[in-house]
Amino acid sequence: MNEFIDRVKFRVNIAGEALAIAVVQDYRTLEVLMVAFMNRNALEETLETEKMTYFSTSRERIWIKGETSGNFQKVKEVKIDCDGDALLFKVEQKRAACHKGYYSCFFRTYENGKVKLTGERIFDDQRVYGDKNDSNST
Amino acid sequence: MNEFIDRVKFRVNIAGEALAIAVVQDYRTLEVLMVAFMNRNALEETLETEKMTYFSTSRERIWIKGETSGNFQKVKEVKIDCDGDALLFKVEQKRAACHKGYYSCFFRTYENGKVKLTGERIFDDQRVYGDKNDSNST
Repeated sequence: MNEFIDRVKFRVNIAGEALAIAVVQDYRTLEVLMVAFMNRNALEETLETEKMTYFSTSRERIWIKGETSGNFQKVKEVKIDCDGDALLFKVEQKRAACHKGYYSCFFRTYENGKVKLTGERIFDDQRVYGDKNDSNST
Repeated sequence: MNEFIDRVKFRVNIAGEALAIAVVQDYRTLEVLMVAFMNRNALEETLETEKMTYFSTSRERIWIKGETSGNFQKVKEVKIDCDGDALLFKVEQKRAACHKGYYSCFFRTYENGKVKLTGERIFDDQRVYGDKNDSNST
């Protein structure tokens, strides 16, 4: 595991943390579900537990995706890019990825100069998160 | 166009620039090709020209993908994520995306604790870039 982790360049600095970018794809459809950050600890947890675990730049702590919502992401494949600062995960997504209730966080599309809602809404975010849904905590 | 750009949060700070994350997918196969950064100017250029244009954090300037190699990326679809700091582009990729000669920059996979070469090599990077191939300039 360390052979892999040692190649990762945690070069994005936010909230005093050295972070790598994590891109997450549905392993069946290849739809991109979300983009988030990992510090070294979050990556270690992800590889060990096979549950996607990130560093939240708003809460400034590690979080397991799904710890509030139950919408866990099981790791199916892990890749690293040429310069080592971005990771690509294929996952099995429980219910939906986005804290706004959409299957993917990319539910808005640029069309003819405007923003169009194009994503599939799966659940009511207010019911799942209640008042806690003020950040991208999911 | 501005209605879209105004929703983007350029919140990653590298090399004195405010940047958003750009994830790039092949529009036919949905393979993730690369991850890079855009400042506001790079995003404007990308939307106007329909050629993927980034901000290089190593060279600290805007660059059109393919300006050296000819491996341009034609924009097919543009999405924005829920918190506005990540953009997702579907593109038509000329030849290959990675400056190392692979179709995707994600040519290495984590397998049983080790790193395995799994990508498809399309061209000889030394022939295309020569000595310039010391950064991810492509």
